[in-house]
Amino acid sequence: MTRVHDLTRRLQKDNGSKIVLLVSDGLGGLPLEAGGKTELESANTPNLDALASVGETGGSIPVLPGITPGSGPGHLGLFGYDPLEYDIGRGVLEALGIDFELGSNDVAIRGNFCTIDSDGNITDRRAGRIASEIGERLCEILDAIEIPGVEVFVRPVKEYRLVIVFRGEGLGGRVNDTDPQTTGVPPLEPVGADEPSQKTAEICKEFLEQARGLLADESPANLLTMRGIAMLPEIPRFQEVYGLNPGAIAVYPMYRGLARLVQMDVLDAGATLESQMDRLEATWNDYDFFFIHFKYTDSTGEDGDFDGKVARIEQLDAAVPRITALGPDVMIVTGDHSTPAKMKSHSWHPVPTLITSDRARTDASTAFGEDQCRTGSLGQFEAQHLMLLALAHAGRLEKYGA
Amino acid sequence: MTRVHDLTRRLQKDNGSKIVLLVSDGLGGLPLEAGGKTELESANTPNLDALASVGETGGSIPVLPGITPGSGPGHLGLFGYDPLEYDIGRGVLEALGIDFELGSNDVAIRGNFCTIDSDGNITDRRAGRIASEIGERLCEILDAIEIPGVEVFVRPVKEYRLVIVFRGEGLGGRVNDTDPQTTGVPPLEPVGADEPSQKTAEICKEFLEQARGLLADESPANLLTMRGIAMLPEIPRFQEVYGLNPGAIAVYPMYRGLARLVQMDVLDAGATLESQMDRLEATWNDYDFFFIHFKYTDSTGEDGDFDGKVARIEQLDAAVPRITALGPDVMIVTGDHSTPAKMKSHSWHPVPTLITSDRARTDASTAFGEDQCRTGSLGQFEAQHLMLLALAHAGRLEKYGA
Repeated sequence: MTRVHDLTRRLQKDNGSKIVLLVSDGLGGLPLEAGGKTELESANTPNLDALASVGETGGSIPVLPGITPGSGPGHLGLFGYDPLEYDIGRGVLEALGIDFELGSNDVAIRGNFCTIDSDGNITDRRAGRIASEIGERLCEILDAIEIPGVEVFVRPVKEYRLVIVFRGEGLGGRVNDTDPQTTGVPPLEPVGADEPSQKTAEICKEFLEQARGLLADESPANLLTMRGIAMLPEIPRFQEVYGLNPGAIAVYPMYRGLARLVQMDVLDAGATLESQMDRLEATWNDYDFFFIHFKYTDSTGEDGDFDGKVARIEQLDAAVPRITALGPDVMIVTGDHSTPAKMKSHSWHPVPTLITSDRARTDASTAFGEDQCRTGSLGQFEAQHLMLLALAHAGRLEKYGA
Repeated sequence: MTRVHDLTRRLQKDNGSKIVLLVSDGLGGLPLEAGGKTELESANTPNLDALASVGETGGSIPVLPGITPGSGPGHLGLFGYDPLEYDIGRGVLEALGIDFELGSNDVAIRGNFCTIDSDGNITDRRAGRIASEIGERLCEILDAIEIPGVEVFVRPVKEYRLVIVFRGEGLGGRVNDTDPQTTGVPPLEPVGADEPSQKTAEICKEFLEQARGLLADESPANLLTMRGIAMLPEIPRFQEVYGLNPGAIAVYPMYRGLARLVQMDVLDAGATLESQMDRLEATWNDYDFFFIHFKYTDSTGEDGDFDGKVARIEQLDAAVPRITALGPDVMIVTGDHSTPAKMKSHSWHPVPTLITSDRARTDASTAFGEDQCRTGSLGQFEAQHLMLLALAHAGRLEKYGA
């Protein structure tokens, strides 16, 4: 149990205030050259700058200094869950990423179609990166597999990637990967680390044996390996730990899945930011906490597209007035991690963060950017403490102790 | 097991990059008068200033805010080991400080020669601070002591201080000090807190009884007390936890011993900084992590010699170009703690720290000093997280979670 939730359970109170958490994925960046501006600093962001001017700014450390998170731990941290305590397996994330509704009896597995030779040795761990349509057809074939005592679901992800879910009583998630991470050898045998997981391992073996038969005449994908075998972590409900009724407005399945993991209501919206804003306005009276996720600052960063990321930040900025017009008591703008275009990847650098409320200790910031956040009122803080700050600014926490 | 090493074991990768950790002992300081400059700020340091200008700066908190560390915890923190988890006994540190190679079966003890009267009561806990030559002669006498089942080593340190090591199977390190911390009373009886330690206590008693006979005719040092009885802590290997092949270039035995504690290769060098730089250049291709230790910023601070510390900092600065010329991927300059000349002692104040790399988020710093580090990109961080930052900047950590 984290200290954060010990406190919020004990101190929470409902004063009817509303909080908006706007997450711009991979928001933080780096200048292309020392002394230059980051993506956020280069962008023309009059609306975010206005918020920074009246609010508190700082830097959010996603996990620990130097630790670069994936999307899972990045978001869990922002939701106030210790990302080192709640470890989300790769299979679970992959299932969340295709909008598969996992339950507590489900074991989720990431599969990779691969190629084996007549001796059973792997010759290509990704089966020549087969087209998505082929992957979809093969998943349909495998979805017909039946194993006594469990339900089996096989779903395509993209190209050679798929998700397998076993649903049944008494399964465990501590099973090794069967992918040997090299070629010229056969897949590894699945072995469970405890009794429930050994039950899962036996089901994996049965599945793989049937798959071997069903795919025997296929080429190049004539088998699959299994990775990241995992079950949903036991994770407390967002509403229970904070006393907030949360709605999530996210377009990409992965982030909808992460919101569902902490039992937020996931609200449907079209694929555009405008559609997300429509949904926010339409549901404003139904929730007192909104998580809004904007993906494209991360994807442009991953592509190394500095200017593209600047443009996406400006697009986000333009949507801000529709949020502030609703009059949230607390508005937070941050990211789950940095994704500097210079690095073409997630990074550990603290994420620019702003909080506005009537209780803000306004700092010297006049614009929203890494350089000004460096010396803001919030200082540098662990992301898992952000929800404490959100609740405090919303007047939703009692005093601790007398 | 610390969280830091859970993460680094799981996420480490080897990309061939090189890291230099330059530790200027006791680097941090204080102005002599409010509003004045610290030692580091007073020094003319063009090379360090250039690094601060292109890198990230901040303040390293050795243990926790307000906690002043000794050399042991100060360095363990910098090496990424939680200094509150890995407690190094005084006897062990004293043995490391005289270059004694301790093994895992050794119990190390700090001894103080003392004076007792005819009733066996202590009249001087330091035996009149006898000259080192006398201490050396007495240690030779005691080194002849034989105790069945263990090897006995007695080595002089300085003046009235000595080190005793018992080497044998099944010994423990949880034995009280025999120094009663006052005069007019006899030394305390050694008592073990568990069975192996009780075995050690019996050996201590036998040793002290023989010593009483051998020193009976000596004056003023006619007995010794025992303090800081301890064994080496079980501490994971630096190379194992980080995937780095480390070389240590330190002149003083204590720091060589601390490096040996985490199983760095300890490289011989002459007593000057120039000789240390020669060694660095000569071994540059043999290691991917170098710990370089510079002692004199601490010793001048301990002496209360503000100007002397300034001069030592300038000496260090002049050596920096020989390091940067080698082209390390990551260069870190920091200290194990502050030693303000004003206080003539170690202190808890955050230690000025800089990191340079291609992945640095350059901040506004134009010079290396306490005042500018206060608002640098690194913020204030616990020293035990420095290795995470080092690995991150070196591109040696995989992403955490998907």
